[in-house]
Amino acid sequence: MIPPPFLLYLGRSDDEIGLKTSRGVAVFRRGDCVGEFRHDECRFTLDLPRLTMAQARAAGARTLVLGIANPGGRLGEPLVEDALGAIAAGMNVASGLHQRLRDEPRLVRAAAEAGVTLFDVRDPPANLPVGNGLPRAGRRLLTVGTDCSVGKMYATLALRDALRRRGVAADFRATGQTGILIAGAGVPLDAVVADFISGAIEALSPARHDDGWDLIEGQGSLFHPSFAGVSTGLLHGAQPAAILLCHDPSRLRMRGLPHYPMPDPAACLAANLSVARLTSPDVRAVGVALNTSALDEAAARRLCDATAAELALPCTDPHRFGADPIVDEMFRCFAPSAPSATVSA
Amino acid sequence: MIPPPFLLYLGRSDDEIGLKTSRGVAVFRRGDCVGEFRHDECRFTLDLPRLTMAQARAAGARTLVLGIANPGGRLGEPLVEDALGAIAAGMNVASGLHQRLRDEPRLVRAAAEAGVTLFDVRDPPANLPVGNGLPRAGRRLLTVGTDCSVGKMYATLALRDALRRRGVAADFRATGQTGILIAGAGVPLDAVVADFISGAIEALSPARHDDGWDLIEGQGSLFHPSFAGVSTGLLHGAQPAAILLCHDPSRLRMRGLPHYPMPDPAACLAANLSVARLTSPDVRAVGVALNTSALDEAAARRLCDATAAELALPCTDPHRFGADPIVDEMFRCFAPSAPSATVSA
Repeated sequence: MIPPPFLLYLGRSDDEIGLKTSRGVAVFRRGDCVGEFRHDECRFTLDLPRLTMAQARAAGARTLVLGIANPGGRLGEPLVEDALGAIAAGMNVASGLHQRLRDEPRLVRAAAEAGVTLFDVRDPPANLPVGNGLPRAGRRLLTVGTDCSVGKMYATLALRDALRRRGVAADFRATGQTGILIAGAGVPLDAVVADFISGAIEALSPARHDDGWDLIEGQGSLFHPSFAGVSTGLLHGAQPAAILLCHDPSRLRMRGLPHYPMPDPAACLAANLSVARLTSPDVRAVGVALNTSALDEAAARRLCDATAAELALPCTDPHRFGADPIVDEMFRCFAPSAPSATVSA
Repeated sequence: MIPPPFLLYLGRSDDEIGLKTSRGVAVFRRGDCVGEFRHDECRFTLDLPRLTMAQARAAGARTLVLGIANPGGRLGEPLVEDALGAIAAGMNVASGLHQRLRDEPRLVRAAAEAGVTLFDVRDPPANLPVGNGLPRAGRRLLTVGTDCSVGKMYATLALRDALRRRGVAADFRATGQTGILIAGAGVPLDAVVADFISGAIEALSPARHDDGWDLIEGQGSLFHPSFAGVSTGLLHGAQPAAILLCHDPSRLRMRGLPHYPMPDPAACLAANLSVARLTSPDVRAVGVALNTSALDEAAARRLCDATAAELALPCTDPHRFGADPIVDEMFRCFAPSAPSATVSA
């Protein structure tokens, strides 16, 4: 466990998407965040108090979260210097970058001297199993997407909160660095060795024997030529009773691949159900989650209604309008005491 | 490049499948093999001279190939001792096991003292790119399978030889440890980090501008719950103009997963074509390769004929009967000067 409270790092970031990890922690663990650290060049804010390292420590911060990403996932000299500053102030440092904190000798030395800890969130767990596809007890929902970064994590967390408000046990199972920092546990699936993708998810979301739900954060898209292998192994390992399709209607081209158009949501849903059936023959779709942040409220609601009619499924922006329509559909499809995944493991 | 000639290791193996790497090298690089090393307990042979380490070195062997696998891919004490014996005799050591030779200090020390080299074939190349899915020039064929270990590598190599005999440039692109030892190059796809599966294949089989073919060794199966993510990324990265479906008709259950029946070959072919179309919209199937080693010749030929009729594609056991029916279909579908993959990269 990475000790809160947190100081969230923005550094000199000039890239809205690049700071999505800090933003995600600010949104979903706001009570654990004492402030943000940014240099004058950074024009973004998380609407938290702007603090120096020393001020943050004095305010109780125990860990600096380096929640920004850059091309290649490198630490770079400015990040190392700021991390050294956090260590000198007496804070732990957590990072989800590909380049590991522990591979930077200056950080290792400084942390040892200061008696603080470095957390590399992208380290996959040791000794992951190969997937076995054995039917396992419990109800699992997986969010799937038309593309990367269309709101799968936000939808999963909103659904967790909506289920809990309705009295249903629900756990978020994180598969990416931001989700792991929010949940305090999970598997950084993009860093797992290829042979262990589905096995990693079987380990992350083991059999459960109550009427509650494991809500598994999806990754990538079956239609993203760079990452569809990850999405496929995730579908098979998750063995989902239900899937929730996530889509960003303002996205015209696949993320990072301007030569690939976005897939049709209906075709994407059908492909996901088809792949999922290998390990979960009775899988069903329970809704569509739209990221409508680019639309005004009236337009967003109209689009949700139109999408619901087109796909014959409940549709909402779960982060904006709540996830209750999806919860209603889950209640309708899955009676409280008759889990659809039957065999125990 | 791993220096031949080779001494092939069988050790104390009592598992026919476990020694498939040594057997593959014996079959496809027989001229580079001076002998086999086995203890009295081993009841298998590759029909090569049985030699001690010293005899092998005297006969010219430069590298001991530890071509056996065990559950977990561990080195284990007996293998380490035999590898030390090979080093003492003056040979390099090559291994495709998950546990790396370089992580065993005794081997590292002994190799340094003897001036020989340790080769860990399962190390993926450094700095693999993320796949980009950009259309690239050249003709590529990928072997796909109903399951793991149904003869994809054998079919790929037989096809290479048949094409070359007909005057067509053809290169084998290895994606597994046995193939890499046979080809002297390749990418051990199952050891690549998940985000880089398709990118690794784009790097392995770059654009080519002649009328020749890259023949890419397939891995796993879209219908294997443990490894379908690898197969999916491989399909997308390969961007194949043609696929060849490989199947073992004697196999009743998925390898390692007795609770999963084998998929129907026609359904498997359709699924592979569907996934492949994301990066290669005009992909087509050019045949079916059966592993008929469990059947007598008449039964094997009858089964090939029946399968050809059922799937409306040429069908052969390419290792047993040659790959000419598949080459004929490739000639029919792909005219010499009009590659189907058009755009250059």
